[in-house]
Amino acid sequence: MNRPKILATGIRDVEFGVDVTVVEPCNLYECTIGDGCFIGPFVEVQKGVLIGARSRIQSHSFLCEKVTIGSDCFIGHGVSFINDAFRSGEVSFDSDRWEATSVGDGAIIGSNATLLPVQIGPGVVVGAGAVVTEDLLEPGIYGGNPARLLRGK
Amino acid sequence: MNRPKILATGIRDVEFGVDVTVVEPCNLYECTIGDGCFIGPFVEVQKGVLIGARSRIQSHSFLCEKVTIGSDCFIGHGVSFINDAFRSGEVSFDSDRWEATSVGDGAIIGSNATLLPVQIGPGVVVGAGAVVTEDLLEPGIYGGNPARLLRGK
Amino acid sequence: MNRPKILATGIRDVEFGVDVTVVEPCNLYECTIGDGCFIGPFVEVQKGVLIGARSRIQSHSFLCEKVTIGSDCFIGHGVSFINDAFRSGEVSFDSDRWEATSVGDGAIIGSNATLLPVQIGPGVVVGAGAVVTEDLLEPGIYGGNPARLLRGK
Repeated sequence: MNRPKILATGIRDVEFGVDVTVVEPCNLYECTIGDGCFIGPFVEVQKGVLIGARSRIQSHSFLCEKVTIGSDCFIGHGVSFINDAFRSGEVSFDSDRWEATSVGDGAIIGSNATLLPVQIGPGVVVGAGAVVTEDLLEPGIYGGNPARLLRGK
Repeated sequence: MNRPKILATGIRDVEFGVDVTVVEPCNLYECTIGDGCFIGPFVEVQKGVLIGARSRIQSHSFLCEKVTIGSDCFIGHGVSFINDAFRSGEVSFDSDRWEATSVGDGAIIGSNATLLPVQIGPGVVVGAGAVVTEDLLEPGIYGGNPARLLRGK
Repeated sequence: MNRPKILATGIRDVEFGVDVTVVEPCNLYECTIGDGCFIGPFVEVQKGVLIGARSRIQSHSFLCEKVTIGSDCFIGHGVSFINDAFRSGEVSFDSDRWEATSVGDGAIIGSNATLLPVQIGPGVVVGAGAVVTEDLLEPGIYGGNPARLLRGK
């Protein structure tokens, strides 16, 4: 009978600002979380992620390496970020080949949305359940799979 | 080095019926869960939610404030409910502006579905991965993003 | 005041190969996990599931009964498998009526994808956020809701 190596979620080597609230269990490591942020339960935030002040990361969301979140953002529940788009048809185990995502200040990402490596402009609203496959830089509300502009601002 | 305020998931101020089963870790607070319900792991149910008798809430689902689930419902895995549709393009921190969702008796919500604030009729089936943006009152099977009627009953 | 029956996630009756890594909390029971696999946090793997060598099951994913994963597969974050397609418009509580899913060797399933009971061919790439409603046997990259071939190999 083989025994697996068991790791545990937790908070390790995170640089927190002041007045941050975190709900455990969650898995946060080697990332930077700004003043006044809220991190809900069942969240994973990986190495190198930067989260700006007063942003809220809701339950069940996953922020991978190479993601940067601005200030005053709202990341809904069950949101998944991606840094490997499998463009070659294969998984890249070399992080040098992973791509970055940035979410501008005040942007809102709806629940269960999925973001390929893209740039999201300040104040952009990504609707719930949207799958974002390209940059969304113009202000407005986007939704669908793939995400399209639903309404400009 | 700042330290965050750490909260923990758990079960707090929940009114349970008889014969309810809950799998921890989960985060249930100030809600009402009827007789014979099942609540899977990694689930969050927020304040004021009502869940009718014999309904099953599967793993990874999120039920926000202002959600009402009927009796004999099946809520799949990774389902996310929403009470703030960001209609103004901004997050509403005032709960008076949040909108309600109701799921009728015997309705089925497929896994990874996402529901904006809507009414789901009794016995309606929402397919897996659907994004529901408007009321679905007529019996039938709905799917897609946005969800459309796939097959009437 | 009624008290619910409380169960806890954990690892129970799992047959592990050598060099497996598991991140807790997760819920793994009565399944088989091959040599060199990685199982991320907040994952549930149910009874009877087979996972081939060196496959990675990322955080927040749910593998239900009757799922078979090949070797060298990558199952992204928040992926949900389904064995009951509610074809009758009702939930089947009889497991004899559930349907199987198989994922071929080297296949990649993107984050937040949802798979109805289907066959996925070896090396197939399912894009993030896709909803797979039919067999995907030909090599290529598939995406959308419902998933369509985006690019052959």
